Amino acid sequence: MNSLTLQTPQRQYPVYIGQGLLSETHLFTAHIHGQQLVMVSNETVAPLYLDFLKQQLRDYSGDTVILPDGEAHKTWSSVSRIMETLINQRHHRDTTLIALGGGVIGDMTGFAAACYQRGVNYIQIPTTLLAQVDAAIGGKTAINFHEHKNMLGAFHQPQAVICDITVLSSLPDRHLRSGFAEIIKAALIASPEFFQWLELNATLLLARDTDALTHAITRSCQIKIKLVEHDEREHAERALLNLGHTFAHGIEAAHRYRRYLHGEAVGLGIICAAKLAHRLGLLHREKHDRIHNIIKRYKLPTQLKSHKNPEEILQFMLMDKKILRQSLRYILPTDQQTCVIQENIPEIDVLTVLKEIMLGE
Amino acid sequence: MNSLTLQTPQRQYPVYIGQGLLSETHLFTAHIHGQQLVMVSNETVAPLYLDFLKQQLRDYSGDTVILPDGEAHKTWSSVSRIMETLINQRHHRDTTLIALGGGVIGDMTGFAAACYQRGVNYIQIPTTLLAQVDAAIGGKTAINFHEHKNMLGAFHQPQAVICDITVLSSLPDRHLRSGFAEIIKAALIASPEFFQWLELNATLLLARDTDALTHAITRSCQIKIKLVEHDEREHAERALLNLGHTFAHGIEAAHRYRRYLHGEAVGLGIICAAKLAHRLGLLHREKHDRIHNIIKRYKLPTQLKSHKNPEEILQFMLMDKKILRQSLRYILPTDQQTCVIQENIPEIDVLTVLKEIMLGE
Repeated sequence: MNSLTLQTPQRQYPVYIGQGLLSETHLFTAHIHGQQLVMVSNETVAPLYLDFLKQQLRDYSGDTVILPDGEAHKTWSSVSRIMETLINQRHHRDTTLIALGGGVIGDMTGFAAACYQRGVNYIQIPTTLLAQVDAAIGGKTAINFHEHKNMLGAFHQPQAVICDITVLSSLPDRHLRSGFAEIIKAALIASPEFFQWLELNATLLLARDTDALTHAITRSCQIKIKLVEHDEREHAERALLNLGHTFAHGIEAAHRYRRYLHGEAVGLGIICAAKLAHRLGLLHREKHDRIHNIIKRYKLPTQLKSHKNPEEILQFMLMDKKILRQSLRYILPTDQQTCVIQENIPEIDVLTVLKEIMLGE
Repeated sequence: MNSLTLQTPQRQYPVYIGQGLLSETHLFTAHIHGQQLVMVSNETVAPLYLDFLKQQLRDYSGDTVILPDGEAHKTWSSVSRIMETLINQRHHRDTTLIALGGGVIGDMTGFAAACYQRGVNYIQIPTTLLAQVDAAIGGKTAINFHEHKNMLGAFHQPQAVICDITVLSSLPDRHLRSGFAEIIKAALIASPEFFQWLELNATLLLARDTDALTHAITRSCQIKIKLVEHDEREHAERALLNLGHTFAHGIEAAHRYRRYLHGEAVGLGIICAAKLAHRLGLLHREKHDRIHNIIKRYKLPTQLKSHKNPEEILQFMLMDKKILRQSLRYILPTDQQTCVIQENIPEIDVLTVLKEIMLGE
């Protein structure tokens, strides 16, 4: 098992990565301070792992909330169901919420924990690759509001993040690949060596090789942890983690979060960012092609198939919460080892890039 | 004008107290960092002061949300209306919310500010005496959930608190008296001299003498600020501010927040706390009587008139969020200069006290 530490100005907490961690009861009990628990999961994950988790934590007074699966349910109405259980079962300030699921469950459980009695503890057990390498780390919690993604939320760090590689065995291939998009993103932001390793190990990773997965998750978490530690509230460099996301959120919103998985949209967004960087003279053709090719190698979509036109997708991008002072912010890969953050990019360049990716160019 | 400063571990902000502050535009502009504003008020206060405030702040891009008045509307549904305005008018992360109203408006606006895009700025303009001396200070924000008071919320400090004594002129007498209960509470917690001053100046204060009001508000704010500075998150001594509130919340909930104003319930709660302290040998008869008499002198109810019996009211107290580890926590005045926090008080003593106050003894 790999054990990382995330240090915020207030406190630190561990991120555990390894096989069979759901069976390691002490990993949980060390981070549960009261006698009460609420385990929050969804209709897909609960039948697979919830009974096992309940059995592991049978010494506590435990309640469960099982929510419908999917981004469309990341709403106040779902959070409200968690609140009802907390109140009806009279949970105290020392209760602990446990998020057992993907990013959606983690975001909602974290937000419920942030708000209930002005803040109670929670533990993240991400069950998708995407949540293990990205969503569960860093204390950003949120819900959508009227189709506007992550519009309401809080910064609220968990007590611990437990990434059990074993649970990924039940993850459908499409969802596994979606997670690789965030791993590729982490590499592009921070480590050319890791990027190269990902180029070389696609076959192993797609075949779910345990050692390769453990390494890829650990490196991604390390990169994210470092950025979060420097900038918990995203005043500066944490924004680098949004590489591909300005486009991705627009693409997801334009299709009402139905056509593309988040990681698939991020993959498309990374390609758009590379195209844009190339147009602006920040990125040579060779590196641009490597970026395009790695997305393809991980069997992620490289062509945006949509009934919307580029102008419409741009409108959805403009709706996004990344809007700050009325201009969109783009994270762009460069020929140097790091990405840059740019605002005030002409709309025509963005539209051209969207046109290209819709043609699969 | 008196200017106090509240210093939290993260940052400091001012609390201004004086006459005609709504006209002092610079007090606002110094704490507004973007170009956008949302002014949140209620149907009672908006017709009196909102147009004036809008005129003062006409250089900004301002939107308004006018909510129904009263504790019954301190719900997600009201917060949701604030969110809709923020989103529909495309407010950015550097927007500022302005709460123009009593404690309910302040709590909801603060909570909306805490959640919108994971936290934007807000300014408190409390328009009731109760909000000026208590609710607007200290960054506790919250909404009720299914009749459970303040069950959801956040700690989110405002940019500034502007207590304009002049706006109190439109406050009905009953609401003014309600505010005195929190002022008496502050004196009981921290200052025998201030308590004595309140005993001697009841007539002046009830007649709304400006100098006396300014002094009473300033002293109360100073006391609250000191407690919040020592313990922002209420791990310890901030809990002293709940003097009278364990009973008050039960009394309010038992009557669905309709029969008694918050301050009236706090006044009854303070009497209950004094009775309980006397029963437990912590408070001599003489001090107990002074407490009872000051509540009476400020024309606050001293008898609990209810269709509920003491057992029922205790059940509502047990529902309260102050429940921690399944026992109620009482703040009790003592013969010494300070109050003490006690848990595990026998139910029979609490019921006896409730019985006495229902008889007006």
